[in-house]
Amino acid sequence: MRHLSLNRVSSHRLHIRKMSLLPLPKTLIPFLAPYLPVKRDDRPFVTLTWAQSLDARIASRPGVQTKISHLETKTMTHYLRAYHDAILVGVGTVLADDPKLNCRYGNFSKIRPVVVDPDAKWDYSKSTLCRLKNEGTGLAPFIFVNDDATTSPENEDILRSQEGAYCRLPMDLSNRANNWLLILNALHNVGVNSVMIEGGAVVINELLQSSVVDSVVITIGPVFLGKDGLEVSPASARILGNVNWWRGETDSVMAGHLIPEGQPH
Amino acid sequence: MRHLSLNRVSSHRLHIRKMSLLPLPKTLIPFLAPYLPVKRDDRPFVTLTWAQSLDARIASRPGVQTKISHLETKTMTHYLRAYHDAILVGVGTVLADDPKLNCRYGNFSKIRPVVVDPDAKWDYSKSTLCRLKNEGTGLAPFIFVNDDATTSPENEDILRSQEGAYCRLPMDLSNRANNWLLILNALHNVGVNSVMIEGGAVVINELLQSSVVDSVVITIGPVFLGKDGLEVSPASARILGNVNWWRGETDSVMAGHLIPEGQPH
Repeated sequence: MRHLSLNRVSSHRLHIRKMSLLPLPKTLIPFLAPYLPVKRDDRPFVTLTWAQSLDARIASRPGVQTKISHLETKTMTHYLRAYHDAILVGVGTVLADDPKLNCRYGNFSKIRPVVVDPDAKWDYSKSTLCRLKNEGTGLAPFIFVNDDATTSPENEDILRSQEGAYCRLPMDLSNRANNWLLILNALHNVGVNSVMIEGGAVVINELLQSSVVDSVVITIGPVFLGKDGLEVSPASARILGNVNWWRGETDSVMAGHLIPEGQPH
Repeated sequence: MRHLSLNRVSSHRLHIRKMSLLPLPKTLIPFLAPYLPVKRDDRPFVTLTWAQSLDARIASRPGVQTKISHLETKTMTHYLRAYHDAILVGVGTVLADDPKLNCRYGNFSKIRPVVVDPDAKWDYSKSTLCRLKNEGTGLAPFIFVNDDATTSPENEDILRSQEGAYCRLPMDLSNRANNWLLILNALHNVGVNSVMIEGGAVVINELLQSSVVDSVVITIGPVFLGKDGLEVSPASARILGNVNWWRGETDSVMAGHLIPEGQPH
């Protein structure tokens, strides 16, 4: 119950947390309970989560960070992160958003950021994530790259000194959807039992089509972002089971379990 | 309060109604109240409503009727229809679904079906709507066609005998989004004070971009229909105000007012 360990957070960190997050609406705790990670033997438990518009866009344009959800659901995201060993995003998200990928609900230093960057396009040394690690408020990332990707010696050195790593895998670059089992197995082998996957659209759409997602938590904001927005939609139909909805100030949150294809629900 | 006039429905009709609709969940009545039509002087009050998947699809393929929502939200649709003078759909919907377009909540014979069919592609004489009118359980439609559209003499005769009509308007066929004011004014001139517009995707997307929509009521079912589905998304971003969410057995319903572009909210 990592989110209860507030007493171990320094007053400085608590101040940051209080400044940036609204209180968690109390009703979210029982609402989210059935969807929190449980230990699996075969691979890490995977929670897929994002905020979208009514027209299933997560941004108004590719590469543009767009406010969709109420700040109370931002608190929910950090609350959910506190139950996971790692947070994973695709390279598109780090390039577009330069995200913090930490957990500001409770003891945020214990969440492992994971970035999937097959071609090693991300210059880690210039990132907010690198700065947070140097400031002592986050872990260094595991960056998954393809076997033969060219990484800069500078980034290699920084990651090594920070106890992060480039993780080289023989990825399928013609169909990247095939790499998820590879990535999740690699994480499982280093003790990661739960991963919260937060985007971007390419990652979400691949995973919605996969058989490696357990819980799905979607925040829907009352806005249409329009046809040019960055869309969430899998290649073919998928059904959710054990669905519940939570109503916030302006948003609705849907939580459910992704039913494996071909399985009764 | 047309929905209260159940006592005027014949026992035969009541039987049909009971067979086909679940009871209305009681909490929907106060939830929907703020979004029901009020009289406007300038044009009919417009309610835009549909059921969609999480990825904002209203059908799994163009032309394929797809179950998305729980039967309780079907009852909601008929309850909402009872507050409107007319139900409007585009020609794509009548060709794909051959819908009844009546109101099975309360006294369903009083709702005017309206079909927008600029090129007069719909063969009304073969439709379920035509049969329902002959059976005495529905009104004949107003069919909006372009000025110079070719309509069949058979359909003209049937509509005349049933007190329906082809309504000819000088439509803009290069940009059909321009025709909505024309259509709504024509309806207003014959005493239609409220229109519930139910699709399909082309109609919804045009109207989401327009300034003629008052209330929006969207049912979201916990399913992804996938990339090849028929999508709801306006050409550019739109914001909703006075938003509320209702949680059903499996679906969530969002109701709100479409904020005119450039207006503070």
